[in-house]
Amino acid sequence: MPELNHIPTKEDIEINHKKIADYIHQTPVLTSTTLNTMFSSELFFKCENFQKAGSFKYRGAITSILNLDKQERKLGVATHSSGNHGQAIAKASQKLGVRATVIMPKNAPQVKVDAVKGYGAEVIFCENNLASRETTLKAHISRTGAIEIHPFNNYNVILGQSSCAKELIEQTQDLDVIIAPIGGGGLCSGTVLSSKNFGQGVTVIGAEPKLADDAYQSFEQQKLIPLASTNITADGLRTSLGTKTFDIIKTGVEDILTVKEETILIALKLVWERMKIIIEPSCAVPLAAVMENQGFFKNKKVGLILTGGNVDVKKVAHLIPE
Amino acid sequence: MPELNHIPTKEDIEINHKKIADYIHQTPVLTSTTLNTMFSSELFFKCENFQKAGSFKYRGAITSILNLDKQERKLGVATHSSGNHGQAIAKASQKLGVRATVIMPKNAPQVKVDAVKGYGAEVIFCENNLASRETTLKAHISRTGAIEIHPFNNYNVILGQSSCAKELIEQTQDLDVIIAPIGGGGLCSGTVLSSKNFGQGVTVIGAEPKLADDAYQSFEQQKLIPLASTNITADGLRTSLGTKTFDIIKTGVEDILTVKEETILIALKLVWERMKIIIEPSCAVPLAAVMENQGFFKNKKVGLILTGGNVDVKKVAHLIPE
Repeated sequence: MPELNHIPTKEDIEINHKKIADYIHQTPVLTSTTLNTMFSSELFFKCENFQKAGSFKYRGAITSILNLDKQERKLGVATHSSGNHGQAIAKASQKLGVRATVIMPKNAPQVKVDAVKGYGAEVIFCENNLASRETTLKAHISRTGAIEIHPFNNYNVILGQSSCAKELIEQTQDLDVIIAPIGGGGLCSGTVLSSKNFGQGVTVIGAEPKLADDAYQSFEQQKLIPLASTNITADGLRTSLGTKTFDIIKTGVEDILTVKEETILIALKLVWERMKIIIEPSCAVPLAAVMENQGFFKNKKVGLILTGGNVDVKKVAHLIPE
Repeated sequence: MPELNHIPTKEDIEINHKKIADYIHQTPVLTSTTLNTMFSSELFFKCENFQKAGSFKYRGAITSILNLDKQERKLGVATHSSGNHGQAIAKASQKLGVRATVIMPKNAPQVKVDAVKGYGAEVIFCENNLASRETTLKAHISRTGAIEIHPFNNYNVILGQSSCAKELIEQTQDLDVIIAPIGGGGLCSGTVLSSKNFGQGVTVIGAEPKLADDAYQSFEQQKLIPLASTNITADGLRTSLGTKTFDIIKTGVEDILTVKEETILIALKLVWERMKIIIEPSCAVPLAAVMENQGFFKNKKVGLILTGGNVDVKKVAHLIPE
């Protein structure tokens, strides 16, 4: 079966987490006395920047491919991605001996193309627009029969991502709230499902850049509103929600907070300099939400998911304010 | 008693480690499949960049101050340092309610001065040379009676630093060798003592930049040879060995390896980009030693101590090669 036909249940999540346990890192949860003091909260950072292939996306990728049957595995998998999902699919496929094809825009940074190829996947280039990506992907699939693995609007992917918040809940005690950044919503909807099923009262808050607030708008109006084209620091969040993820998020999150670009950069600097870890700009969004809402988070135990660390360190260091 | 009057014994190290356990972080040991594959070794990175005050120096600082008696604590502590030792002394003193004074050269980076002051210590400025540092420190001590805590040539400091390798040995299994960078030799001599007492056959290798190879020269000739002035990337290692540290190192290490500046920078890039953690250039020296001696380390289980992460991230990112 290529994909679950329903929203993952508690049992689905438990079974899958056991199934993927040997393939993923149970990433550490880091804390910082300095940041706790600074914001009068207890902050627990779930470090998916240390995950295999450098981001939480590996959880969804390995789940999707492990759940393919023998015949489907033979056909290979395909996706379009210029980011972490592509790397995750490439690495998970390599691990399981499945052929993978990643459609990438022809202007994708060489380092990202190299990473995908380095994991043994085939790269097919397309024009740098969604239409070209989808057409190229469809053409490849109809030619080869490859199984498409969508980066977020896929129940197996959501199932995989849910293991992240499940671990975070198990690694901490009495969390009040988990903040997950929202791009396409795969991580956030997985976080909603695990919090509901394992969290004993933990609520979920989504966080996104003010300049890419499609999830906030969709949540407020309770209908899916696509993201207009935007140029933001947190480039990993430049994606609209999907129907499946929005369906889970629209009633599952307590709130969606939007944050300013300046705050994202200060949060990024704090994590790099105080916590001594390399995160992508997108990962700084949950901490930025704490910074802009200190009254709300005061004295709370807050889980923050740091989604990934695949960056050109020189380029990102350049963004960090003095 | 301000300082042990003998080389720390197994019992000293065990007692002290229990005593300081609640004050320090038991820092994590990270591994990277990518780096293991790249160098055909099993590498275990002890992450003292996550230690309180951002470096292993906190272990020696808290040990030294905890071992002062009531009368001595009233007099306060003093040291000269423009680096991690100063921050560690300041933070440990603040924690224990002891007054601390740090002598710093007047051209010390503002960020370092701010860090020391931020932990509540007094800063006295001096000229930027060793004579002025020592004179200023002595004047302060004779005026106030403050207890000097030398950054490395002090048995309590060595005792504190030894807890780092003890933890690394306890957190891993069957290590063959631990590589410690050598500046003044406090960490390396502590590593020698813990490896001998707890390591079941683990050997210690010192690593230093070829351009600051005083430890290598001293080890080869079995006599203390001071470091000539030098300008190196790994600025934390721009220090000569002390009599007490050399005494332990000269027969305690298996070998001292020196590494090229170019290799240090490539190792730095690998740790930042592949392991997603921020380390100081000095920390890259042990990995550089593995890179330049792959035949020797092949198929071995190697512990590497990452000593600290107190950097201006923009400045260090600038050093990283494309």
